[in-house]
Amino acid sequence: MQKATNKVVSVRLKSELEYRGKMSNVDPYMNVILVDAVESENGAPKANYGKVVIRGNNVLYIRIEDRL
Amino acid sequence: MQKATNKVVSVRLKSELEYRGKMSNVDPYMNVILVDAVESENGAPKANYGKVVIRGNNVLYIRIEDRL
Amino acid sequence: MQKATNKVVSVRLKSELEYRGKMSNVDPYMNVILVDAVESENGAPKANYGKVVIRGNNVLYIRIEDRL
Amino acid sequence: MQKATNKVVSVRLKSELEYRGKMSNVDPYMNVILVDAVESENGAPKANYGKVVIRGNNVLYIRIEDRL
Amino acid sequence: MQKATNKVVSVRLKSELEYRGKMSNVDPYMNVILVDAVESENGAPKANYGKVVIRGNNVLYIRIEDRL
Amino acid sequence: MQKATNKVVSVRLKSELEYRGKMSNVDPYMNVILVDAVESENGAPKANYGKVVIRGNNVLYIRIEDRL
Amino acid sequence: MQKATNKVVSVRLKSELEYRGKMSNVDPYMNVILVDAVESENGAPKANYGKVVIRGNNVLYIRIEDRL
Repeated sequence: MQKATNKVVSVRLKSELEYRGKMSNVDPYMNVILVDAVESENGAPKANYGKVVIRGNNVLYIRIEDRL
Repeated sequence: MQKATNKVVSVRLKSELEYRGKMSNVDPYMNVILVDAVESENGAPKANYGKVVIRGNNVLYIRIEDRL
Repeated sequence: MQKATNKVVSVRLKSELEYRGKMSNVDPYMNVILVDAVESENGAPKANYGKVVIRGNNVLYIRIEDRL
Repeated sequence: MQKATNKVVSVRLKSELEYRGKMSNVDPYMNVILVDAVESENGAPKANYGKVVIRGNNVLYIRIEDRL
Repeated sequence: MQKATNKVVSVRLKSELEYRGKMSNVDPYMNVILVDAVESENGAPKANYGKVVIRGNNVLYIRIEDRL
Repeated sequence: MQKATNKVVSVRLKSELEYRGKMSNVDPYMNVILVDAVESENGAPKANYGKVVIRGNNVLYIRIEDRL
Repeated sequence: MQKATNKVVSVRLKSELEYRGKMSNVDPYMNVILVDAVESENGAPKANYGKVVIRGNNVLYIRIEDRL
């Protein structure tokens, strides 16, 4: 995962929430720091956050967008 | 996270509760101590707390407000 | 947290239960021992307990009342 | 907690179940051994158990009855 | 708990399921091996198992039947 | 549990799903590898899997079939 | 599990979601990295992902497809 640092990722939570932004840090528990993040719910954008730290135990998966 | 100590943050819980205040301390489990905190539910302020210790396992994310 | 030992605190659980009393002990998991505790539900007092040990994994937050 | 060994306690679970008996042993996870225990649900006695080992992760709190 | 090895016990799960049999082994997480076990739900027998290993995190309590 | 390696077992999950097959491996968390596994739900067969790795935290119990 | 690296697997989550792709990495917690993954829900394909990291605690089981 650490190799994906500074790439754009989408973090999907167990709920319908998803956060897309540049992953400035991630640890083995999948605690993730995103900068310039967009929060979406069921695919609809809801809010923009300058810097957000997502607690890993809420994460369903992380998609690495730069590969697409 | 420790770099954000003493900044104003918003702590969103897994429920609809959110706490905004100065983060006087945070540990790797995201246990957070906030001072002069405002509790909101679905965006509506509910209460003010002088000092509150939030248990990390309830946390969905922490936004660092000072960057905005 | 240990600095708040012997202060009056309110322990809010993930459910609507809340316990207010003197915190005679607390550990890093937020297991809390309260003496002369009042149990409330949705803000309404329900019972008084001489000494109660609350298991930390039920805790949402702990407010330090003495600062208010 | 260990100081309360051999005292009469009430163990409240996260569900509406409660067990009252002499606490012959307790460990840091709040696994509790009760002897001569009465099981209640919503305050109504349901059954008597000679010896019961309650797994700590089900526990909401333990009240020390001898102090009352 | 280890002292109760080879005694007849009833293992109550967080659900309404209960298993009664000879406890041939138990570990500190309350993983339990029962032999000649009867499975009951809400008190009604459902099935017989020669040997069953119950994962501890499902356990609500273990009653030691031999004391009754 | 390791003694039951290569025996036929039935792995019951917390949900109504059950998997029966030869247990080629098991670890202390009850992560289980089954080969030639049949998946059932509420007792009705649903699918066959050549090799499946079940994550232990979903397991309710493992029955050792060879003893029956 | 590590022996299945680079094989095609299907990762079933506790919810109805399933991900099929080449498993480029897996760790003991069943955190899984899939490449060229297809997401299905109740058996119907929903989306394609170039690279996705699934957090292990959401996993129900992993099927090794290459054996079929």
